[in-house]
Amino acid sequence: MLFGSDNWAGAAPEIMQSLEHHSSGYAVAYGDGDLDKRVEETFCDVFETECRVYFVGTGTAANSLAFASVMRPGGVAFCHAEAHMTANEGGAPEFATGGGRLCLVDGELGKISPDALSAAVAGYPQHFNHLGQGTLVTLTQSTEGGTCYSLEELSAISAIAKQHGLALHMDGARFANALVDVGCSPAEMTWKNGVDMVSFGATKNGCWCAEALVVFNPEIAKEAEFVRKQMGHLFSKTRFVTAQFQAYFEGDLWLKLARHSNSIGNALEKMVSQSNRIRLAWPSKTNQIFFIAKRSEASVWLEAGARFHPFPTPRSLVEEVRPDEQVYRLVASYISTQADVENLSRVIHT
Amino acid sequence: MLFGSDNWAGAAPEIMQSLEHHSSGYAVAYGDGDLDKRVEETFCDVFETECRVYFVGTGTAANSLAFASVMRPGGVAFCHAEAHMTANEGGAPEFATGGGRLCLVDGELGKISPDALSAAVAGYPQHFNHLGQGTLVTLTQSTEGGTCYSLEELSAISAIAKQHGLALHMDGARFANALVDVGCSPAEMTWKNGVDMVSFGATKNGCWCAEALVVFNPEIAKEAEFVRKQMGHLFSKTRFVTAQFQAYFEGDLWLKLARHSNSIGNALEKMVSQSNRIRLAWPSKTNQIFFIAKRSEASVWLEAGARFHPFPTPRSLVEEVRPDEQVYRLVASYISTQADVENLSRVIHT
Amino acid sequence: MLFGSDNWAGAAPEIMQSLEHHSSGYAVAYGDGDLDKRVEETFCDVFETECRVYFVGTGTAANSLAFASVMRPGGVAFCHAEAHMTANEGGAPEFATGGGRLCLVDGELGKISPDALSAAVAGYPQHFNHLGQGTLVTLTQSTEGGTCYSLEELSAISAIAKQHGLALHMDGARFANALVDVGCSPAEMTWKNGVDMVSFGATKNGCWCAEALVVFNPEIAKEAEFVRKQMGHLFSKTRFVTAQFQAYFEGDLWLKLARHSNSIGNALEKMVSQSNRIRLAWPSKTNQIFFIAKRSEASVWLEAGARFHPFPTPRSLVEEVRPDEQVYRLVASYISTQADVENLSRVIHT
Amino acid sequence: MLFGSDNWAGAAPEIMQSLEHHSSGYAVAYGDGDLDKRVEETFCDVFETECRVYFVGTGTAANSLAFASVMRPGGVAFCHAEAHMTANEGGAPEFATGGGRLCLVDGELGKISPDALSAAVAGYPQHFNHLGQGTLVTLTQSTEGGTCYSLEELSAISAIAKQHGLALHMDGARFANALVDVGCSPAEMTWKNGVDMVSFGATKNGCWCAEALVVFNPEIAKEAEFVRKQMGHLFSKTRFVTAQFQAYFEGDLWLKLARHSNSIGNALEKMVSQSNRIRLAWPSKTNQIFFIAKRSEASVWLEAGARFHPFPTPRSLVEEVRPDEQVYRLVASYISTQADVENLSRVIHT
Repeated sequence: MLFGSDNWAGAAPEIMQSLEHHSSGYAVAYGDGDLDKRVEETFCDVFETECRVYFVGTGTAANSLAFASVMRPGGVAFCHAEAHMTANEGGAPEFATGGGRLCLVDGELGKISPDALSAAVAGYPQHFNHLGQGTLVTLTQSTEGGTCYSLEELSAISAIAKQHGLALHMDGARFANALVDVGCSPAEMTWKNGVDMVSFGATKNGCWCAEALVVFNPEIAKEAEFVRKQMGHLFSKTRFVTAQFQAYFEGDLWLKLARHSNSIGNALEKMVSQSNRIRLAWPSKTNQIFFIAKRSEASVWLEAGARFHPFPTPRSLVEEVRPDEQVYRLVASYISTQADVENLSRVIHT
Repeated sequence: MLFGSDNWAGAAPEIMQSLEHHSSGYAVAYGDGDLDKRVEETFCDVFETECRVYFVGTGTAANSLAFASVMRPGGVAFCHAEAHMTANEGGAPEFATGGGRLCLVDGELGKISPDALSAAVAGYPQHFNHLGQGTLVTLTQSTEGGTCYSLEELSAISAIAKQHGLALHMDGARFANALVDVGCSPAEMTWKNGVDMVSFGATKNGCWCAEALVVFNPEIAKEAEFVRKQMGHLFSKTRFVTAQFQAYFEGDLWLKLARHSNSIGNALEKMVSQSNRIRLAWPSKTNQIFFIAKRSEASVWLEAGARFHPFPTPRSLVEEVRPDEQVYRLVASYISTQADVENLSRVIHT
Repeated sequence: MLFGSDNWAGAAPEIMQSLEHHSSGYAVAYGDGDLDKRVEETFCDVFETECRVYFVGTGTAANSLAFASVMRPGGVAFCHAEAHMTANEGGAPEFATGGGRLCLVDGELGKISPDALSAAVAGYPQHFNHLGQGTLVTLTQSTEGGTCYSLEELSAISAIAKQHGLALHMDGARFANALVDVGCSPAEMTWKNGVDMVSFGATKNGCWCAEALVVFNPEIAKEAEFVRKQMGHLFSKTRFVTAQFQAYFEGDLWLKLARHSNSIGNALEKMVSQSNRIRLAWPSKTNQIFFIAKRSEASVWLEAGARFHPFPTPRSLVEEVRPDEQVYRLVASYISTQADVENLSRVIHT
Repeated sequence: MLFGSDNWAGAAPEIMQSLEHHSSGYAVAYGDGDLDKRVEETFCDVFETECRVYFVGTGTAANSLAFASVMRPGGVAFCHAEAHMTANEGGAPEFATGGGRLCLVDGELGKISPDALSAAVAGYPQHFNHLGQGTLVTLTQSTEGGTCYSLEELSAISAIAKQHGLALHMDGARFANALVDVGCSPAEMTWKNGVDMVSFGATKNGCWCAEALVVFNPEIAKEAEFVRKQMGHLFSKTRFVTAQFQAYFEGDLWLKLARHSNSIGNALEKMVSQSNRIRLAWPSKTNQIFFIAKRSEASVWLEAGARFHPFPTPRSLVEEVRPDEQVYRLVASYISTQADVENLSRVIHT
């Protein structure tokens, strides 16, 4: 019944075994070890293209590094109003860029609306120093609302970015959950649809601490290694990150784990949909499910041992949530079980 | 024969076992889990005082966080000219402070000279905005030269810091190596001698990635948690760091590992001292040993499989190092062996 | 007919005479001259309280200095969505704070709505490092929409700021225009109603370049002098700023100039109100008047020599402005004349 | 007898007349006015090449803008250990670059030694993120020690900069004083000898507040306009700066004023050289003269109305200055007179 977050789960056995395997002996430090190089090549294989991989310790670091790597004076990044980048990173992207601005863009279900994006970008005309200059569009896949951009939706966003010379970044804290939901290849979900770089998160999907900024476009983010070092994310024993990634990709572990948590997510969604006590806030098909309940009832369920968190009401839902109600988020992890869903259902419905 | 760095070694078995033990199940994220709390208390026990512990991923992050936590407009930190803070962090402390300055202070054997520190501090008179304002003194224990400040030497530095209202920070990337060499308690080597905060490093001493900024003085570094978040060092699964620390302190593992690497360091020093091919650059009693050799000879030894790195010639040694010579650094790790020393000696002397 | 901006006008004769008078001979540099001290005292007289005065070169600098002076890690400033601070400073406040965030707050007629402010402030709970921490509320008087907060409205905003421990800053780029419209004393419009600091602008009201951050609360902005220096706004020959201010206050020149430009503003508003070609966008009583016109017609008037600029449509007006229409801004300056108004009227109506 | 600084003098009559002349009527704001454009063209004429001119309010701003305009992650600027950039700007260059580092380089008489520069640059190998990356060499002409680089010395520095792909910046706070001393054209003293940009100072030479960053190389500093705006140095009524520059160049006023202050400097140097109470610290040929005197005697002269400041003892002079002595600086301004020299001499020698 612990659906507080997918980062409440620990590390998968395969991840631990790889760490164990690589824990003895010597390896060159600071990302220049043999394993580090091999895992970088694995990323290239997974994405079917040459790419530069910057390992970091957190998604906050990956996202901030992405913005900082393309920063120019007066730089502005366009992101969804509910994006983790603005709503949950404590201002890290602004800090890492020495004052870069996040321009918030609306859109339903956690997805940037192309029209709203065009309008926002138009608000920063080129060479107009009274305002600043657009440098980056960043979107989250899957979104903070548990939804996914379709490939068509991605293309629409990327077309706007390209048209205005903006880099396109994907916050992939739940990249795997999105990938198995959209049902395409990693390449299709990224560079084949105009994405220049991805914050590739594995922590929420069964690793301890394994994140990377993956850069497809060799022209951008050229000096990301300097920024990473300055953010304190160049690990001496980088192999503790790369050992995790090795196991993560081995035998498609990452996809298996994501399919599992998505399937529990689907079970949660079904349970909510059929409930007469709570109702679905909006449909989502990954491992994050959102429901509306009375605050007084929710606190009873939390007392009974259930774990989930309130979620800020999206603007489009303000009318639908009554004063004594609240939107709540359920997150399934790689160790969530069908029994967890049933237990939660029992707590809610009795 | 691999004496390149103590961060070329992996993770000790006890560290791995603890990670394994804590890898399953759920824990509250972002440092609020039960293990996280318990390990914070262990730090308080180890240091025999209340302290705030900010877990981070690298020594670079801990050092930068220390400076940033006490930063004021125009802030200046005083450090040794060879300090890791200035010579090896890629400008991270300046970056994290949005432009804080490192004022370099001389001193023999890697240790800040009290006289030189007084002169440097006097160079920034109070309330003189044409220059900036001193905010921090930072020293490394053990130093980048493998030496240690005695408790008396620490007191001399801390007296100057206190006199001018400056916070005193210790870069303890090799805190354990210093502690067993100086032969005192953690409290004596820190707050009992005026140290306000320590970058407590465990990575170089058998952990994967376990660093913390430990703050003794509750009046300073009040908002370090915001800075840490902005640097991307608030880990969701913080228990992967605290699990390492738990094992690190358990049964004094940390002291055992440090005694071991120091003893290998001593064996290396003895070997160098008795050599007729190389000579000791300066005496040091921890796990870092420095020797002078001909470049042409050193490259032969490296070809033969030995591993060590050149080290910048300290100003005080410039006269002693001939043009065809170079200072080199040997670092013993927790897995270095007496046989490694003998093999290296064989390579050098045959 | 040149109503492009009040900063298109030059410098009033009295200002020039004072500069001329103070141009010869020596004076101690960097703000420590006799005249500099006297003018600081004049500010204290004008505001009927002790205050610290930081002379700077632009309103952008004064506003950025205000935010930077109270900055803490993760700091957030709350401002109106149309505020100069966010819409016209090229990101300077974010830059000066190394990544401080501007949280945009809605409200009609350019004024922060107390309810919207309370909601925005509540969005940053204390000690929650995933988001940041509120440090400042900043409002513009008179607003970018030419309107003024009444003393009651100021009190409502300041009560919210105080309740949450936030500093309150007033962007007074057109302080004098507001003052003569509200009809109160400088003290009443500021510290007596909870304002902690004011960007006191004189440039738009007949000076060349005379701006100051005036700080009433001695507890805040203690280190503003270091920030000002770092922004490059500590002028060596500060008397060129203070000489302007001396004349500005002498014989209430500042109020006379502001009354004049407001009166022309009123004439413009009357002209617009009576027009059958254009209509008032909203009522405002200072020197800035906003009207709605057809784009095609406006371009004809501009061809005929009139000068005014388009203004972004406020959210509340989106419904009222037809696709072929645009909001335009007219600004009267200290040298605008009744004849200018008549000429503009003739161009528009014939 | 007021030789405290050349910025203690006010503004020359010609400067005031130009300000007066341009004070009435309207002009387009923010540097787009007719006068602004004409003065930019005058700069091109003076330097005999196309150049971009960024007007700012202080030398601190111009120098910081120079560094910030070429900043890259981990960027390092090389400057003389006594340079204004490091010794008198309150950390503004580091602040404007979000943490750029000033690497101090030695050299006699305030001039960067080519050998020391080469060694310093070599200390930052390319693509080595543990240290940072060189981006800029900055030198002062005339130097803080009143001396000037010869054209050959400039070429030697610029060759090193070019060889390593570093931009070359000249801090020309006293550009005119250097120019008339070196006796060459502005072009020869800058871009013809490899200088990419100049902080062109006029304030110390008879203006109120007239500084500009002049950029010769169109490939660098492309986004300086955004940085200037963020530093709060885009003046709305830019004509108050350009009006000063117009008069400054008109009829070679700038050269006349500089020749005058240099000639007074020479008279001061002669007086010091012939003194039996004080001695010349080192020879300099511009408007800044440095002498060594007993502290006790100097305070008597100051009591008697003389004005001059102590100057930090350069490393090369440490042996020559006795404990009861001090180095002092005399600065002649555009209004200094031969009588001032004689009065000072009388005070010293009686």
